[in-house]
Amino acid sequence: MNAEIITIGDELLIGQVVDTNSAWLGQQLTFNGIRVRQKTAVSDSPSHIIEAITAAAKHSDIILLTGGLGPTKDDLTKQTLAAHFGMKMRLDEDVLQHIIALFRRFGREITETNRTQAEVPDGCDVVPNPNGTAPGMWFDLHGKIYVSMPGVPYEMKAMFSDAVLPKLRQRFSLPAIYHRTVMTQGIGESWLSDALEQWEASLKAANIGLAYLPSPGMVRLRLTAYGDDKAALQSKVDAKIAELPALIGKYIFAMEDTSLERVVGNILGERNQTFVTAESCTGGYVAHLITSVPGSSQYFLGSTVTYANEAKSSLLDIPQDLINSNGAVSEEVVKAMAKNVREKLGADYAISTSGIAGPSGGSEEKPVGTIWIAIASKDGVEAKVFQFGDNRERNIVRSAQSALMMLFRKLSIASNQ
Amino acid sequence: MNAEIITIGDELLIGQVVDTNSAWLGQQLTFNGIRVRQKTAVSDSPSHIIEAITAAAKHSDIILLTGGLGPTKDDLTKQTLAAHFGMKMRLDEDVLQHIIALFRRFGREITETNRTQAEVPDGCDVVPNPNGTAPGMWFDLHGKIYVSMPGVPYEMKAMFSDAVLPKLRQRFSLPAIYHRTVMTQGIGESWLSDALEQWEASLKAANIGLAYLPSPGMVRLRLTAYGDDKAALQSKVDAKIAELPALIGKYIFAMEDTSLERVVGNILGERNQTFVTAESCTGGYVAHLITSVPGSSQYFLGSTVTYANEAKSSLLDIPQDLINSNGAVSEEVVKAMAKNVREKLGADYAISTSGIAGPSGGSEEKPVGTIWIAIASKDGVEAKVFQFGDNRERNIVRSAQSALMMLFRKLSIASNQ
Repeated sequence: MNAEIITIGDELLIGQVVDTNSAWLGQQLTFNGIRVRQKTAVSDSPSHIIEAITAAAKHSDIILLTGGLGPTKDDLTKQTLAAHFGMKMRLDEDVLQHIIALFRRFGREITETNRTQAEVPDGCDVVPNPNGTAPGMWFDLHGKIYVSMPGVPYEMKAMFSDAVLPKLRQRFSLPAIYHRTVMTQGIGESWLSDALEQWEASLKAANIGLAYLPSPGMVRLRLTAYGDDKAALQSKVDAKIAELPALIGKYIFAMEDTSLERVVGNILGERNQTFVTAESCTGGYVAHLITSVPGSSQYFLGSTVTYANEAKSSLLDIPQDLINSNGAVSEEVVKAMAKNVREKLGADYAISTSGIAGPSGGSEEKPVGTIWIAIASKDGVEAKVFQFGDNRERNIVRSAQSALMMLFRKLSIASNQ
Repeated sequence: MNAEIITIGDELLIGQVVDTNSAWLGQQLTFNGIRVRQKTAVSDSPSHIIEAITAAAKHSDIILLTGGLGPTKDDLTKQTLAAHFGMKMRLDEDVLQHIIALFRRFGREITETNRTQAEVPDGCDVVPNPNGTAPGMWFDLHGKIYVSMPGVPYEMKAMFSDAVLPKLRQRFSLPAIYHRTVMTQGIGESWLSDALEQWEASLKAANIGLAYLPSPGMVRLRLTAYGDDKAALQSKVDAKIAELPALIGKYIFAMEDTSLERVVGNILGERNQTFVTAESCTGGYVAHLITSVPGSSQYFLGSTVTYANEAKSSLLDIPQDLINSNGAVSEEVVKAMAKNVREKLGADYAISTSGIAGPSGGSEEKPVGTIWIAIASKDGVEAKVFQFGDNRERNIVRSAQSALMMLFRKLSIASNQ
């Protein structure tokens, strides 16, 4: 079962947008046992779109298209597909009602331009787009499936997961697949690989695939097995997963694909405990991660972001003397931040960050990438210093992940007491 | 002048790696007046690589390949190109010496595997790779240029900028290109399109391309013109750009490709003014955006993230009575937040947010997506209510963008006084 992904849009070719859609689709297809043969990016040009579709259909059974479905004149995918497949356009009443309802919710009337978004080629199945105005289109022609989806990532992802993938699984008899993901934080890919050398060899012998998926501060390990008998796949993969805690336990925060902010949020929610942050170098990023999770208001009370030293005093009562004698990036200050924000907001746990994110502000004694993180609880306050690199963006992300990992470890210890 | 980019590697197809190389190459080629016709990602398979090259050579003069040049058995690009072009391999003495020197620097001896990296097809020009062991290869055959480069981004980028691009400019007489980007916030793509209908028609008449590039809360407009005379292109595009403020002025925040946080940061920095935030529904995301910009500590003092009502009182002295009688999501509370955080931290400007990000917490009176934003300055405090949708992530992003746009407008008015 081969698939090809065709992404449409001038912005992809000129590099104004990095194509994350096709990477995500590649993952989804691979997980489901569909081999991605080629990915092609073409411009918003009818002849070029048709050329790409025709080439893809020579080798592949499934052709997924994203992009070019907007309401504007440079979006030509829908008309191109209709012309290529010899279909007429029809107004889909359900889509029209959906668009009207979507606009009504924002208190606006639809324009003529928006109304054309309800038109679809008369030989396709409409794929609903709950998050946007452009419907998806499913064509089943001469044994090949063509699916056209919007280019807006969250619209495309929801449409693919909720409607397109189930339809593909039904249309083709896909092999059984079983995969598990283990989340690690605080250990690099090559150290992991060294620590897991023998285990990795045993996976190969069991015909289980392993992928290391790194992102700043984290590595996801993904195990995959294909076959006919899902139960057999599951038991052999689960047995291998069960060997991991003994090898790299202190770095693992979840045995499923999730995020640290969800894991700590779930634990806090279950225990009816609360959490606050006092951020300097992370600039609100820890609070942003925590509050991206729906329902976080149950356990997250708030945060102070104190960039200026005066803000550390006025919001957190950190004495200017303490800052002057130790520097803002110090064990003393980061501990006081965690302790004071916890008391001030009346939370069970507090974490604080103070460091030099860069690119400027470093010194010989405290180079760029020096980050202090503290955690305060009813047991007192502890702090740890990290030395990251010289990239500001990565330093912010790694600091936030390390802070949440300290909270995770604290919560894990608390549960064992 | 057309170019195609072919990226080689299984990791791209299964989505293990997001392909940033081809986006970067797309930018470089476009800036230099070379039109990127297609981008194709294929696996490390000789027949598939040849198929992609052959298809690309039908339409394009320049075929750039990245990846598949490593020392391992799954890297097949070099052998495939030699076989396809009917060339023999030869050992390049300069490349060999470079590899030996590189290994010596890390205190290692080269292995037989590494030595094969010094072999190149006998009909290519070697392109030096100062940052790695795999040389680039330049083929000039039947009027087409084929360039094979490594997939490691920093090796590829240095090789392209320092050697490949100058060689391409010399080899072809490249057309002039001119493009400009205009950034808008607070107006959707279809409303923009309606407001700009006549202007858009005049672009077409002037042979200027227009693209709408939406992201949550924002739309970028990109104008592009190609021709022989760069000055003429520039004056016709700039003249069209100059018509925009009269049409959609209130939504424009920049006449170049940038972000709101950079624009407001630059203005504040130039004026030596300071800024703080008091965030509820945005959960620290405004502070995160602002502090992602290097040097933001010059103008950003800090923020309070007050999710719990008690935090609004303890950090910002908001009376519980005010919250009880109006609700936390109200004009009264959001104004008090902005006013109090500005005074507490001693800043020139403060923005505050309080809303229902969702998915839960809505009511008939205040549905999910109801967001109050206030701005405080020496002139007092003003607030505005927005009604967004029901997607939490987008509500947070759109609220933050809208808040920064309110600050931008305030700063623009201040400069005109």
